[in-house]
Amino acid sequence: MGGNSFGTLFRITTWGESHGKALGVVIDGCPPQMKLSEEDIQKEMDKRRPGQGAGSSPRKERDRVEILSGIFEGKSTGTPISILVRNEDVDSTPYEEMRDLFRPGHADFTYQAKYGIRDHRGGGRASARETLGRVAAGAVAKRVLEQENIEIISYTAALGGIQIDTIDFGEIGKTRLRCPDHQAAVAMEKRIREVKRQGDTLGGIVEIVVRGCPPGLGEPVFDKLEADLAKALMSIGAVRGIEIGAGFKVAGMLGSECNDPIGQKGFEKNDAGGILGGISNGEDILLRVAVKPIPSIHLEQMTINAAFQPAKFRVEGRHDVSAIPRINVVCEAMVAIVLTDHLLRQKALERR
Amino acid sequence: MGGNSFGTLFRITTWGESHGKALGVVIDGCPPQMKLSEEDIQKEMDKRRPGQGAGSSPRKERDRVEILSGIFEGKSTGTPISILVRNEDVDSTPYEEMRDLFRPGHADFTYQAKYGIRDHRGGGRASARETLGRVAAGAVAKRVLEQENIEIISYTAALGGIQIDTIDFGEIGKTRLRCPDHQAAVAMEKRIREVKRQGDTLGGIVEIVVRGCPPGLGEPVFDKLEADLAKALMSIGAVRGIEIGAGFKVAGMLGSECNDPIGQKGFEKNDAGGILGGISNGEDILLRVAVKPIPSIHLEQMTINAAFQPAKFRVEGRHDVSAIPRINVVCEAMVAIVLTDHLLRQKALERR
Amino acid sequence: MGGNSFGTLFRITTWGESHGKALGVVIDGCPPQMKLSEEDIQKEMDKRRPGQGAGSSPRKERDRVEILSGIFEGKSTGTPISILVRNEDVDSTPYEEMRDLFRPGHADFTYQAKYGIRDHRGGGRASARETLGRVAAGAVAKRVLEQENIEIISYTAALGGIQIDTIDFGEIGKTRLRCPDHQAAVAMEKRIREVKRQGDTLGGIVEIVVRGCPPGLGEPVFDKLEADLAKALMSIGAVRGIEIGAGFKVAGMLGSECNDPIGQKGFEKNDAGGILGGISNGEDILLRVAVKPIPSIHLEQMTINAAFQPAKFRVEGRHDVSAIPRINVVCEAMVAIVLTDHLLRQKALERR
Amino acid sequence: MGGNSFGTLFRITTWGESHGKALGVVIDGCPPQMKLSEEDIQKEMDKRRPGQGAGSSPRKERDRVEILSGIFEGKSTGTPISILVRNEDVDSTPYEEMRDLFRPGHADFTYQAKYGIRDHRGGGRASARETLGRVAAGAVAKRVLEQENIEIISYTAALGGIQIDTIDFGEIGKTRLRCPDHQAAVAMEKRIREVKRQGDTLGGIVEIVVRGCPPGLGEPVFDKLEADLAKALMSIGAVRGIEIGAGFKVAGMLGSECNDPIGQKGFEKNDAGGILGGISNGEDILLRVAVKPIPSIHLEQMTINAAFQPAKFRVEGRHDVSAIPRINVVCEAMVAIVLTDHLLRQKALERR
Repeated sequence: MGGNSFGTLFRITTWGESHGKALGVVIDGCPPQMKLSEEDIQKEMDKRRPGQGAGSSPRKERDRVEILSGIFEGKSTGTPISILVRNEDVDSTPYEEMRDLFRPGHADFTYQAKYGIRDHRGGGRASARETLGRVAAGAVAKRVLEQENIEIISYTAALGGIQIDTIDFGEIGKTRLRCPDHQAAVAMEKRIREVKRQGDTLGGIVEIVVRGCPPGLGEPVFDKLEADLAKALMSIGAVRGIEIGAGFKVAGMLGSECNDPIGQKGFEKNDAGGILGGISNGEDILLRVAVKPIPSIHLEQMTINAAFQPAKFRVEGRHDVSAIPRINVVCEAMVAIVLTDHLLRQKALERR
Repeated sequence: MGGNSFGTLFRITTWGESHGKALGVVIDGCPPQMKLSEEDIQKEMDKRRPGQGAGSSPRKERDRVEILSGIFEGKSTGTPISILVRNEDVDSTPYEEMRDLFRPGHADFTYQAKYGIRDHRGGGRASARETLGRVAAGAVAKRVLEQENIEIISYTAALGGIQIDTIDFGEIGKTRLRCPDHQAAVAMEKRIREVKRQGDTLGGIVEIVVRGCPPGLGEPVFDKLEADLAKALMSIGAVRGIEIGAGFKVAGMLGSECNDPIGQKGFEKNDAGGILGGISNGEDILLRVAVKPIPSIHLEQMTINAAFQPAKFRVEGRHDVSAIPRINVVCEAMVAIVLTDHLLRQKALERR
Repeated sequence: MGGNSFGTLFRITTWGESHGKALGVVIDGCPPQMKLSEEDIQKEMDKRRPGQGAGSSPRKERDRVEILSGIFEGKSTGTPISILVRNEDVDSTPYEEMRDLFRPGHADFTYQAKYGIRDHRGGGRASARETLGRVAAGAVAKRVLEQENIEIISYTAALGGIQIDTIDFGEIGKTRLRCPDHQAAVAMEKRIREVKRQGDTLGGIVEIVVRGCPPGLGEPVFDKLEADLAKALMSIGAVRGIEIGAGFKVAGMLGSECNDPIGQKGFEKNDAGGILGGISNGEDILLRVAVKPIPSIHLEQMTINAAFQPAKFRVEGRHDVSAIPRINVVCEAMVAIVLTDHLLRQKALERR
Repeated sequence: MGGNSFGTLFRITTWGESHGKALGVVIDGCPPQMKLSEEDIQKEMDKRRPGQGAGSSPRKERDRVEILSGIFEGKSTGTPISILVRNEDVDSTPYEEMRDLFRPGHADFTYQAKYGIRDHRGGGRASARETLGRVAAGAVAKRVLEQENIEIISYTAALGGIQIDTIDFGEIGKTRLRCPDHQAAVAMEKRIREVKRQGDTLGGIVEIVVRGCPPGLGEPVFDKLEADLAKALMSIGAVRGIEIGAGFKVAGMLGSECNDPIGQKGFEKNDAGGILGGISNGEDILLRVAVKPIPSIHLEQMTINAAFQPAKFRVEGRHDVSAIPRINVVCEAMVAIVLTDHLLRQKALERR
């Protein structure tokens, strides 16, 4: 159990390195008799693809998914679903000089410290390409949730210091930035172009809303719904902070402000973010994550090499200015996986 | 697996309700031949005890721990350590009227929705008393970490809107608030007394520092060290937000600001919070959690009863103004448990 | 995870040493709203009690169970059920000379080799008293199965070389030997008295039948129903062999003999023992286990001490001639736990 | 967790159907820095290949393994090892008539009962081809064990009613039957040819010996070494009985016969089969499994179809007479996986 699996009843295992032969995921515990096609998965994969907007990497990742098992005549059979993406368009030459360098902000040093060996090409296992498997599994999870009318929507709440002012859900799909505020989106695009010219990168904030989640999901006391969501989201490389509901604002609130009064039509506000005592309460689940700037910048940086000697270096290659557009998709995937898992766990408890 | 266990190799299982016969924890996977006494555990338990300062509950929780197994002649044997705390000083009468009420901010509604039954007395399983088992297990974990010279320190960084300005580690132990800034501590105590008179409660922020953690702990990609820490901390009832290192500040940073340069003497700053790619890098691990105000306020609140009819109620009983002092201890315990688990996982990987 | 937990959704964790303060079990994942009393559990505990027949130990184990959590007003709440049995009537003096001796057939040597420390009193954690927790958890599992009309019956098929010829289920409860063949039971009792006089002990065979198990339980490919049953039964200290259905007889069969033809009323015979491809098929589940003689004999034995010097010793103390009566109860408990776990896992899969 | 994973620290997940696109395995937790090539794995795969002897299926399974991840420049990196085998030479036509038939002795009926859907082609997920992934993972585990000088040898102890009389380890590799008794091997081959002509199939017994296992492996009380071995072996489709050490013979033994005396040079006999109290004692580990005849016979059989109407059918296609040769290899793989897992678990416990 080297940490590459997630989930209890709906359990995924991802594998693969950035410049290896392929990446993929095995999903164990998908309910049977569910319609599922490669296209269902490809659609999600295409959303996480870079190279489609300002500030995005020109790497042409086709990332064609292939379902190798678990589906028979268009339906899930209850057996493991194995999904494969071959690595194409891979040129490892630019990474050759990083074989013995530890790039700041990357996992080079820590993988070396942990394992005594690492695949330095493109970050190896620590590459963002690992999330291909998560997104593929998330696509399957979303199909399960659809059957229960549970919907997950993520959007960009801040990028490069620009915050959204309004939320128009209709705007989200219009740009690759997934920004629900048109004006903010324009400013974000401008900021991206600026920073791209400087060879630098940008962080931001993603918000995720879950609609239609029934009350009862989540297993106290350690597998609280928000605890599993926090783990799922914090396991995404670039995420450095997580909030549920009112988040850090609770620190300055009074109890009388923070408690959500309960009325006959449900909760009268939602500072709890849809979860009480680790169990969903039927309101929207509200999550917020802080995303750090991509560490691969085109400016010169100081570091050390494997001989512990100082070294300067500059990332060439192709890199996005911000992970935000992709991270939206990955966040949705991880939330979908957690909810599906807890949905199945809850079904096990219910009386027939 | 109803969610009451945590950890992989160092695995704890807590049990017990607020007004049941007892609460406790079973620790499976504690390394053998380690000196361990009831006193080692009692010391930590006493730190989480309420009733010792301004704004704290007068409930006299003695909470005497009893070790029932796993220790022989003062040393751990490698077999499960079972720790018991009997519930004494329990008066369930004040809760009788809440049998059919769903208190705002509490888990009453969601436990009922999930299980169709609940022990309403003192919050039942959702009570903060559940953390007794966590703190006892954390005391054991701390003993394991001590042997590796790993130390965990938590302190109160904000309470009731008052932030600390300076950090003097020597101040932390001086007050029950665990505040490292003397002046802020005075202001916090004042704020607590004020709010206590109003019958209201306060939230705050706790910061946790881990010193001496060697590089190499954490298992990518899902069991990243920060992911397991996030789950551990978010599984504490009152926690609504989590940050690692620079936390939400990364959202506004440039990559060139956020990356920690690596020099010959180590990392030149620590915005990463001691973890890169899910693996500890040898620097201090820096965590920050937002704690909501205790939902049990003495003001009248609106809610509904089990018949879905509106109801007003007011909490009588005895309650703290802020969970912050206790949560410090619980946070330390959870961090200790995660680190011990990953320490053992890392040992399994190492070459002999 | 020191190996003291078993199960996935219905998960038990046992703890305690033979001469420690107490032994017990925590059950996590018990379905809510199920009637359950201490008497339900005590009844099963009393069945595993020694000291009630020929060849049994005179140790007066009262073994009063106490339920500490998870039950509210007579019903399960879905939270962990903690069950405690205090050790009484414990005299560790006879074990003092074994502190540095490795008793043949016991786990003394291997615990020392593994942990570098052991509680030598009464076998410590390796004592048959550990099964108290299993039997208590099994009693809870049986209550779950009762609701689904699943019944588990075990009986003694051989003891001290005496095989049963006939199976009369009505006979089983009549004697403590749980022998379904009256004549065989008489011969077994005679054999026990004989061997008791010699200071020796006897092995035997237990068979277990599960009636009413619906088709569909078991998770291929590793968590096959028979695989989990095999693990559960082989985890009982004295068990050295396991058969499902025709068992070792299949080795000499032709395919045409071994296959169970399927007719309109179901399977026409049951050499498969109720499981095909790891999944229950609706027929009775048939299991058979070989139980070794209790290693504590009153004859002089050769061994070595902790200094690796030869030593002779003779067990004094109080010991049964055969584990068979108790092992019946433990086998039923373990089978009940496996079935309950798989029942819950199957419920998670079913369409609502 | 649909049951397709096995192991705790060395954890494998197999996937794939007999007539799907591919089959494979993901291995999580392989120690880093270990030399490993596709050839290491291919060698083991070739041993389980049918079509090489009397009574074997003519299906030309090339079964070329491809390592897709986890190996960098010839060495393991500590990240998951994904291994793929494409299905070639697949003709599903002969299975078309079995789409709605439940074949006796197969899992057709139970998969349908459990999942409400199944891939009927070649047995789908219940096919013996699933063991490809096990054998590939076993090859990796064997490399880990080699470094610790632990060796696993399996051989055929009985086939079609013919028992071995002598054990000459040099004989095992000489024939595909892996029989250590030359004369018995000749008789077995004769029996196979005879039964092949009749269109029937044969069962047998496989024995497995582990040499060089150090004391200390195994985690009491549920994850006893023999319990995990029993689960591992019973999870192989055709296995119906398991013995450790003296196995079922213990039922007729006296305690004084069964106990292995301990002398200064170790245990003086090995009826315990190398495990005491769930922990290896340093002696050879001795296991024995009963293997049922392959259920696909060429004789006419009675069954029912999906409409629960009686149906006669006769398997055409290509099938082995006995699974014994392949099962040897699969048993070795499963034993290797269990030992590797427990080796890593034990390393986590050891003092540095």
